[in-house]
Amino acid sequence: MTTTVTVTRMVTLASRPAKEPGPENFALTTTELPELGDGQLLVQNIFMSVDPAMRGRMETTEKQYTTNFVVGAPLDGSAIGVVLQSKDPAIEVGAHVRHRFGWREHAVVDSVGAAVVDPSRAPLQDWLGILGQTGFTAYAGLIRAGELTAGDTVFVSAAAGAVGSAVGQFARKLGADRVIGSAGGKEKASLLVDDLGFDAGIDYRNDLPKGLAEAAPDGIDLYFDNVGGGHLVAALGALRERGRVALCGMISDLCDRDASPPIGHLIQATLKRLTIRGFIVRDHEDLRTEFEDRVSGWLRDGSITSRTTVTSGLDNAPDAFLSMLSGGNVGKALVQISDENG
Amino acid sequence: MTTTVTVTRMVTLASRPAKEPGPENFALTTTELPELGDGQLLVQNIFMSVDPAMRGRMETTEKQYTTNFVVGAPLDGSAIGVVLQSKDPAIEVGAHVRHRFGWREHAVVDSVGAAVVDPSRAPLQDWLGILGQTGFTAYAGLIRAGELTAGDTVFVSAAAGAVGSAVGQFARKLGADRVIGSAGGKEKASLLVDDLGFDAGIDYRNDLPKGLAEAAPDGIDLYFDNVGGGHLVAALGALRERGRVALCGMISDLCDRDASPPIGHLIQATLKRLTIRGFIVRDHEDLRTEFEDRVSGWLRDGSITSRTTVTSGLDNAPDAFLSMLSGGNVGKALVQISDENG
Repeated sequence: MTTTVTVTRMVTLASRPAKEPGPENFALTTTELPELGDGQLLVQNIFMSVDPAMRGRMETTEKQYTTNFVVGAPLDGSAIGVVLQSKDPAIEVGAHVRHRFGWREHAVVDSVGAAVVDPSRAPLQDWLGILGQTGFTAYAGLIRAGELTAGDTVFVSAAAGAVGSAVGQFARKLGADRVIGSAGGKEKASLLVDDLGFDAGIDYRNDLPKGLAEAAPDGIDLYFDNVGGGHLVAALGALRERGRVALCGMISDLCDRDASPPIGHLIQATLKRLTIRGFIVRDHEDLRTEFEDRVSGWLRDGSITSRTTVTSGLDNAPDAFLSMLSGGNVGKALVQISDENG
Repeated sequence: MTTTVTVTRMVTLASRPAKEPGPENFALTTTELPELGDGQLLVQNIFMSVDPAMRGRMETTEKQYTTNFVVGAPLDGSAIGVVLQSKDPAIEVGAHVRHRFGWREHAVVDSVGAAVVDPSRAPLQDWLGILGQTGFTAYAGLIRAGELTAGDTVFVSAAAGAVGSAVGQFARKLGADRVIGSAGGKEKASLLVDDLGFDAGIDYRNDLPKGLAEAAPDGIDLYFDNVGGGHLVAALGALRERGRVALCGMISDLCDRDASPPIGHLIQATLKRLTIRGFIVRDHEDLRTEFEDRVSGWLRDGSITSRTTVTSGLDNAPDAFLSMLSGGNVGKALVQISDENG
């Protein structure tokens, strides 16, 4: 059966944020879908991701992770949908595919940029979250940038967030001896220990260096940085000799450069011979199969938990994004655009 | 022949600097030398080193490289002298030894902490400079922390200084394609190119990012950091993808924390997957023999140059140190304490 859709609704960038992004930076518009060419798919999106990297892509002033969003054009990002029409013989109508055209209800997608996912292996949400780029960022960051070693004490910031909650759980499975996370507020800090198996959760709104000293009296070996700023400075202080920092996000410095502490704190890296390494997940595709096999196994045997915060409706996608930026989510923040059964 | 000396003059720490160190922080005193025990040497110092790491050791507030200096006690640091008395049968009177008891005219030294150096292989000054800890810092930093790769474009700050002038010359010999240095003032910047074989010298008192962009239009691969601060930020901007930073000194941040730019500039490390690594030279003693063999060979065949700035007399050692901190030296800063022939 072939379903025909000729128009769709999408979220475009209305303007760039002067400082903090707000609802005024987004617009909802209707557009015509192009004719399907050879090797293309018409996809009805079911879930889309909102993630911190999109914050940088709204700006124009500095080079960011990937191509920046364009004013007047639709935003994009990871999404999963069901194939309504296919001009690729290898992909059937009804298949579920993960692709890069979120922020819209339907998309015409080149099949080379789409990956078929198997909902019998794990729920669709997980393929966008803990089994998607989010989880893969945690996995590759720990192994490659962080050089996780058995027996490590690992600290991760934004630990209740999408990447952070995966980092803490993966670190334990990969041999870390002690796993510590920070989160905003007492409730989230408790959730790290109670629901996600962390050894300690720190409410960073209190005294972070003190919290870190209490949670890791002998110091930490590996810091997985999702926020930068004061967190990075506190971690530099707590790191043991030959410790490692995996730099992932630094969202606090991106949002508020004025509040960023002095770079002179890096003197700690000399004194303690630390290694600080930035990474981009697409450099580590060679780990993808191993990652999917191991993490789907851990999910099935219940040794890790997948947490998602789902907002309903494309109309609410900007709110879901803004809420995620201010820490309103636990685990992966997703928007459900249509019913899971198409 | 045994020479007997019972008292000596030494420089002690009179007080810790409030901000910038000054002559008032030093005192010259006379003290009695202890009796020589078994395995000890009485050494008449000929040369002593003044180096940037001593700046941190004058402070007390934060953990520094090694043990901090103690108020009222003598300073210490690398020195070379001639053995006047020996209670170690393996070391003869008249031998030249390198040891850790600078800032005094004579010292009683445990022979296990002294290394015999051969003045026929290289001048005594070089054994404290380009063939000593200074040169070894450059060598180990380039190879281990910086992972120097053939074809690299290398940038080093404080390039007219002791470590920097070695870094630039060694980088070339170790396969760098292009070597760029920064120094304070037009004269020193020219000297880098004219006397030390750098491809470009930048006067950092002008616009450093602009100078770097002109000297390395395609960016840099490796930054050897001796100063931190604005230099580090400029280098983070100029580094190519997968670039490396070897963190050695960061003296600007040590001296003036208020002027330190925001740590948020490290976002560049994520965007460009950079590796930033602090190192301490004593971790790399396994490279020592290779280092001495190669560098003494390069000195002999004239493919590198050793530059020293020598101040005469222990009384002038504090001035030599303060002058070195403000960039008054070219190459290794040494104090000559006694005549080379004892």
